[in-house]
Amino acid sequence: MELHTFTLRNNLRPRALALFETLLAYCGTGLEEPELIREDERQAVRFRARPGADVAQIRRLMESAAERARREVEAPTKVVFEVQGAQGAPPDRHAEVIGRECVAIEEGLYIFGPAFTRLMRALDQVCLGLARRLGAQEYTVPAYTTWEVLEASNYVRLFPQHLTFGHVLEHDLDAVERFATARSREEQQSMTRPSPLVMLPAACLHCYTLKRDQRIDDPLLMTVVGHCSRYEARRMTYPGRLWNFHLREIVYLGSLPGAAAFRRQIVDELSALAGQIGLPCRLESATDPFFTSARAGLAFYQHASDLKYELVGALPGGDRSLAIASLNYHQQHFSQSFNLRDGAGELLHTACLGFGLERWAYWLLSHLGDDERDWPEILRDGQAPAV
Amino acid sequence: MELHTFTLRNNLRPRALALFETLLAYCGTGLEEPELIREDERQAVRFRARPGADVAQIRRLMESAAERARREVEAPTKVVFEVQGAQGAPPDRHAEVIGRECVAIEEGLYIFGPAFTRLMRALDQVCLGLARRLGAQEYTVPAYTTWEVLEASNYVRLFPQHLTFGHVLEHDLDAVERFATARSREEQQSMTRPSPLVMLPAACLHCYTLKRDQRIDDPLLMTVVGHCSRYEARRMTYPGRLWNFHLREIVYLGSLPGAAAFRRQIVDELSALAGQIGLPCRLESATDPFFTSARAGLAFYQHASDLKYELVGALPGGDRSLAIASLNYHQQHFSQSFNLRDGAGELLHTACLGFGLERWAYWLLSHLGDDERDWPEILRDGQAPAV
Repeated sequence: MELHTFTLRNNLRPRALALFETLLAYCGTGLEEPELIREDERQAVRFRARPGADVAQIRRLMESAAERARREVEAPTKVVFEVQGAQGAPPDRHAEVIGRECVAIEEGLYIFGPAFTRLMRALDQVCLGLARRLGAQEYTVPAYTTWEVLEASNYVRLFPQHLTFGHVLEHDLDAVERFATARSREEQQSMTRPSPLVMLPAACLHCYTLKRDQRIDDPLLMTVVGHCSRYEARRMTYPGRLWNFHLREIVYLGSLPGAAAFRRQIVDELSALAGQIGLPCRLESATDPFFTSARAGLAFYQHASDLKYELVGALPGGDRSLAIASLNYHQQHFSQSFNLRDGAGELLHTACLGFGLERWAYWLLSHLGDDERDWPEILRDGQAPAV
Repeated sequence: MELHTFTLRNNLRPRALALFETLLAYCGTGLEEPELIREDERQAVRFRARPGADVAQIRRLMESAAERARREVEAPTKVVFEVQGAQGAPPDRHAEVIGRECVAIEEGLYIFGPAFTRLMRALDQVCLGLARRLGAQEYTVPAYTTWEVLEASNYVRLFPQHLTFGHVLEHDLDAVERFATARSREEQQSMTRPSPLVMLPAACLHCYTLKRDQRIDDPLLMTVVGHCSRYEARRMTYPGRLWNFHLREIVYLGSLPGAAAFRRQIVDELSALAGQIGLPCRLESATDPFFTSARAGLAFYQHASDLKYELVGALPGGDRSLAIASLNYHQQHFSQSFNLRDGAGELLHTACLGFGLERWAYWLLSHLGDDERDWPEILRDGQAPAV
C-alpha cells in the first residue's frame, strides 16, 4: 500500500490535537494505519490507503476533522484529586496475564478469564455497596433500548457513531426458509429489516424510561448494570476500549441542590476508593464524544458548566490511560426528554455515576496481575460465597 | 378488521397442534389475533388481518405451518421428576406485584424491579454455587457473538428466526453528520450497514469459541452468564418470553461417559433444588425450536437420542407453564464445529445446563409475591452483603 501524507494547514494545540487524533478513526473505511508526525515543525498524518480507496475523500475528511478540532476550546483540565500510585511500573508488567485473561474474538469483543471476572465481581460488590449506602434500589435492565427512547433523549443525533441497531428477519415461515437456505451471508444480510431496538449505549436511559411521565415527590436513587454497546470503529484496538461492556450506574433524580450534594458525596467516595486501591489515577473534567459539527458548542458548554468528570486510570508505564468511571450532571436534559417532574410540577435535575466494570478490571489486572494476594483488601472478596 | 377462518385439512394430534400454534407466530406480519377453535369437530384458526394484508398469503403460510406440524413425531414426553407444589393457586395470585415489578418498554423488553432483581441475584448465587461445586471456572462474555461463529455452529441456518443482527453507521465523519441531520428515522435506517456482530442467542457458544482448535486433555467445566437475545416475534406477549434475558450456563467439555455423568449429576441437583423450592415443576424431554422445513428430522432425532430436557415450571392456576432451565447433550456437534479435541485427537463431547434467570424470577414471583419472608430459605440471601 502506498504511503501518503496529509499536512495540517495550521498546527493544533494539545487538546485540539487529541480530538483530531480521535476523529481520524472516522476518516473513511479506506484509511489504514494513520500516524501523527511532524514535518518541518508542521503537524501531519502519515497514512496508507486500502487498494481502491478514494484518497482525495480521505484527505477531505481529514480536513473536516482538523476543522472540527480547530474549534475545540483550549480550556485547562480541572483536576479534583489525584493518586500517584506505582508510577514507575514497566508497561508490559503483566502482559502474559493480560494475554491469557483477555481473548479477542472480534474487533472490540473479548472473552475475559477467571481472574478478570473475579475482579469485575469484586468491584461490582463495591459499587453495589456504595449504591445501597446511598439508598439506591436495584433494577434489572435489558441490553437494548428503543429508537424512540434514543430520539426522545436526542442520543440518536448527538452520538450516532456509537449506536448498534438491531435488525431481524421478517417473522414469516417463508422468510425463515429462504434465509436458512440462502447461498451466502450477503444474501442473508439483504433479508433483514430494522427493528424498533437499538443496543443500549448508556444504562441510565432505562431509569428515565421507567419513570417517564411520573411525578416524583422525593428524590430517587436507582442502580442498574447495563450491558452497554458503543461502537468505536478502529479505536477498538485493545481490551480497554470495547464494543460491549458492563456499566454499573447509580442514578439520582431530584432537585438541583440534591444533585449537587449527590455529586459531592460521590467525589468523596471515589477519592476514598481510589486511595484504598492506591494505583495511579485522577478525577478530572471531561467532555462527551460529540463528533458531529455541533461538537464545539456542546463540548464548551459541558466544560464551562462543570457537567462531566471522569476518573482516569493510568496504565503501567504511564503513557496510556483510560476512563474507568464518569460522574455526570445532566441538569434538566433528561427530565425534559422524559417529562420527569416533582410534586410541584417542576422538572427534576438528574445526575449519574457510571463504572465501566471491564475497564476497571483491565486497569487493575494490568497493574496487579492475577494473584489475588497482590490485590487490595477490598477486592479480595470476588469469590462470593457459594450457597 | 374482518374476521377470517382457516380450517385444517386434517385434525392434528396434541403435540402437532402445539407446534402449529407456535408456528402461527410466523404466518405473516398481517396476521392479527389468531385463535385456535373447533368447527364441526374440525380444528381451525379464527383470525383477523391487518388492513391491506394479503389474506391468501396468510392462508398459504398456515397451510405450510400445518404441513410442518403434521410431520411432528407424536412421541410421549418423558418425565424425569415432578414436584406437585401449590397446584390450587389462583392465576392472578400476585398480579399486582407482577405489574409493578415487570414494566414493559417494548415488545419482549422489560425493566424489572427490586424484588425481581433480588430473586435473580439469589438464584444466580445458587447456580454459581453449583458451578463451583462441580469445579467450573467463571468467564465474562459479551452480549454479541459473530456471524462467523453462528455459521460455524450452523445456528444461522437452524434458528434464523431468533437472531438479532447488529448494524452500524459507516465510521466516517460525513456519514455521522448526514445521520445526525437526517429528517426521519426511515432515512437514518437506510444509512446503516451490517456489521460482523449478531446478538448472542446462547451463552455456551462463547465457551466453544474460546477453546476453538485447542487440545483439551482433561474434562473442562466453565460457567458464564450470557445476556442472550432471541427474537420471538408475536410470541413475546408476557414477561415469561423475552427478547433479551440473562442465561446462566454451566458447560461441560470432555468424554462421552463424562458428559453422561455430568447430566446425571445435574438431574440430581435440579431435583434437589426443585424440592427445596417446592413449587409445581417437572423435568421433561424437549426439542429445540427448529422452524425451518428441516424440523421434523431434527426434532425426531433430538427426542429419540434423549438430547434435551427442560425444567418446566407451572404458573399459578396451572394453565400456563414456562421452561426455566434446560439440560442439553450436544454429542459432538460443537466439537466438530469448533474443532475441540482431547489429547489423543478425538473430538470431545459437550453438554450444558442453562438457567433462564428472568424466567425463574418471574415463576417464583408469580407464586410467592415480593415479601422475602415468603420465599424459600435458599433464595432469601438476595441482598448480597455490602462491602
